Amino acid sequence: MPYSKKVDFILRKLSAKPGDRIRVRKNGVVYEGFLLPREDVDFGDSDCILLKLDNGYNVGIKYSENVVVEKLEGSVELGVFKPLPTKIPPSELPSITLLSAGGTITSRIDYYTGAVAMLFSPEEVLGVVPELNEIVRIRNAERVFNLSSEDMTYREWIKLAEKTYNALSEGDSGVIIMHGTDTMHYTSAALSFMVQNPPGPVVLVGSQRSSDRGSRDSDMNLICASHLIAKSRLREVGICMHGEMGDTYCLFIRGVKARKMHTSRRDAFRPINDLPLCKIWPDGKIVYTSQYVPNKSGEMCFYPYFEPKVALLKTYPGSPPSVLNHLVDRGYRGIVLEGTGLGHIPTSTLRKEDSWLPAVERAIEEDVIIAITSQCIYGSTNPYVYRNARLMLAAGAVYVGDMTSETCYVKLGWLLGHIDNSEEVKRLLQTNLLGEISNRIRPDTYLL
Amino acid sequence: MPYSKKVDFILRKLSAKPGDRIRVRKNGVVYEGFLLPREDVDFGDSDCILLKLDNGYNVGIKYSENVVVEKLEGSVELGVFKPLPTKIPPSELPSITLLSAGGTITSRIDYYTGAVAMLFSPEEVLGVVPELNEIVRIRNAERVFNLSSEDMTYREWIKLAEKTYNALSEGDSGVIIMHGTDTMHYTSAALSFMVQNPPGPVVLVGSQRSSDRGSRDSDMNLICASHLIAKSRLREVGICMHGEMGDTYCLFIRGVKARKMHTSRRDAFRPINDLPLCKIWPDGKIVYTSQYVPNKSGEMCFYPYFEPKVALLKTYPGSPPSVLNHLVDRGYRGIVLEGTGLGHIPTSTLRKEDSWLPAVERAIEEDVIIAITSQCIYGSTNPYVYRNARLMLAAGAVYVGDMTSETCYVKLGWLLGHIDNSEEVKRLLQTNLLGEISNRIRPDTYLL
Repeated sequence: MPYSKKVDFILRKLSAKPGDRIRVRKNGVVYEGFLLPREDVDFGDSDCILLKLDNGYNVGIKYSENVVVEKLEGSVELGVFKPLPTKIPPSELPSITLLSAGGTITSRIDYYTGAVAMLFSPEEVLGVVPELNEIVRIRNAERVFNLSSEDMTYREWIKLAEKTYNALSEGDSGVIIMHGTDTMHYTSAALSFMVQNPPGPVVLVGSQRSSDRGSRDSDMNLICASHLIAKSRLREVGICMHGEMGDTYCLFIRGVKARKMHTSRRDAFRPINDLPLCKIWPDGKIVYTSQYVPNKSGEMCFYPYFEPKVALLKTYPGSPPSVLNHLVDRGYRGIVLEGTGLGHIPTSTLRKEDSWLPAVERAIEEDVIIAITSQCIYGSTNPYVYRNARLMLAAGAVYVGDMTSETCYVKLGWLLGHIDNSEEVKRLLQTNLLGEISNRIRPDTYLL
Repeated sequence: MPYSKKVDFILRKLSAKPGDRIRVRKNGVVYEGFLLPREDVDFGDSDCILLKLDNGYNVGIKYSENVVVEKLEGSVELGVFKPLPTKIPPSELPSITLLSAGGTITSRIDYYTGAVAMLFSPEEVLGVVPELNEIVRIRNAERVFNLSSEDMTYREWIKLAEKTYNALSEGDSGVIIMHGTDTMHYTSAALSFMVQNPPGPVVLVGSQRSSDRGSRDSDMNLICASHLIAKSRLREVGICMHGEMGDTYCLFIRGVKARKMHTSRRDAFRPINDLPLCKIWPDGKIVYTSQYVPNKSGEMCFYPYFEPKVALLKTYPGSPPSVLNHLVDRGYRGIVLEGTGLGHIPTSTLRKEDSWLPAVERAIEEDVIIAITSQCIYGSTNPYVYRNARLMLAAGAVYVGDMTSETCYVKLGWLLGHIDNSEEVKRLLQTNLLGEISNRIRPDTYLL
């Protein structure tokens, strides 16, 4: 369906073709970008003028009388997006299961709103990356659900863990999970704890650009993830995303040590206080880091429970301790406090109402587990340096070394889902189970 | 006062001298480090064995019968700390005021607890860095208060702003503020908004190692801050801390763009989405970056108000929207939501109880300002890409570009302290006033 008659009329009057640079003014907002065609679009509002903005995103601006359209100097050749749903061929290659949770990697523009929405099936994504079929055999491709990653919850983590465990139990060499990037590091931590000792790689893959865009990063991420499964057989859950801005190589980052560190760059995912497990080039080359310990032994284990009454609170100057009381009142069983510096929480003796100490003491009295992390992101908490943290420690709060706040939140809910004894939960929370707590932090991992 | 008789007896039995490597076991905890002397210490518990741990921190372990002490191989020569309180000499150098807010830079070990406590006066700190007197004339040195930075609140920000404004009004070329590092970037943002267009640099300086330690970083930070005031006359509020792990140079980071990114490294403070304003070498060399716009004009302005009913909440998978309702119930007037990715907040339509949308809508109905930032740290929010953020935008939430969550929290409280009209607060929150919102983010500022 092409543009509507009135939009078509305006565009013709300006002799504006797809690819031409256009400026649209509406309600005081100015949009500048290259005109996108509507020819292949069967749905949506044909009154919306579609532009590819300079930041790479696409936008749809509904035309009305108060909209001013101008043609500017310059044009680009627009990449043509052709989804090619292919039949998945059988082969002798290592078999994998491809799960789709939603997210940008499975999305294209929603022409109704001009925003990006989740529309692709796994087969359609595969159609765009036929190379995958030369690296692995996709035994099974399944859209488990179709969620923006900010809407994921522990229920989805459990579902994905279950599907992952089943696929590996059925003999797959690895599992690729297509997932939104926003909370991918929370999911990777959850899967790490829920599916331990997987026989092969469990690889979360996302995309910072939607799959109908020429600048999409999903292809290389999927290709590198497939090489990883076909060649490495690493027994790890992790995230495989771009290592640099360009299409050079991917990082495979331990699921419990990853963090999304940029809102939009392709190399947004970085290991925290850790090296990546390996680097993978799209031609199949893999370079392992010295920190990776191969030859893991042990059976795969499945621990799929999660206590949803856990929370994460950031503390800061003026942060109200009443929020902690509110959560305890509502029956929360574990709360991560993201402190400042080495893990400090306001304990002012100047003004008692500013101190978190009474609320922390009360929570612990009621058998709520209080874990303390640092909002610095890098480095480790240490309760032995300043009086402040010693007070928290004395109250019974648990310091968790260099574990990220996100991983700590997930680990706490996971532990409480499996273990009733609080002392045991506290002990395990401080114990390194899967690499989530570093014994020593290499200086070259800072801002890596 | 030396060690107590019983500790002295144990140490003699082992022929352990200060500097020798010692292992102490107590209640199942093992401490290993170099023995510190007690000769110069006039207070504290002489039953505490003082060790310098390998991580550089000092610890005091109270001796009792269940403590096992061993002497190990190896020893070091301990640096001797001599505080030299000097009279501050008059000179023709540019005059400054030195304010002390507390923090590690003004601290030494508290021999009572073995932890670090705040003990130094500004004069004592100066005594350790006599070089300052060759760079600037310290017209006035004042301990404004003596707080761990996690206990700072808006009240202290106002006090420091007042002192700073007064010092500059009285003709000082600049102001140095010694401050704990944990929340230094919150304070630097507050001072940036409260004291605008200062005639010279307002420099926050801290230390990641206490000032009685040979590895202290305070000296170089203070020296570089002094050079900055003496030579640059930058009209900016910022943070001057180590640029690298070693004692090479310092960064001067815009107060509204700084963040503590490591719990313990000397180069913990980094500019976010920004270059440092300049680099300063301890010999006085200063290199400005291309992003710094010099020759600011305009009178200094003083805006010292702050609305304390503001809060900052991080959202994540499973984050309870009831916390937002709790704050609105308590009369909060502005709340920053630290979303995921481009600024996404859970709005699940699958399970309504997980969606933050009703709580956000209710807050905005009650004239509470909801601002949205990103927990990615780097990059910018963008509400125009995904449906999720468009829903928040439609509800009336305010997206603040690439402003850090910390600066946004401070700016929101500061705006609400001065302006009653919510629409005007929202408009200014999204407007770049002092460099807190980037027009364009340079790629080379990522993980800088």
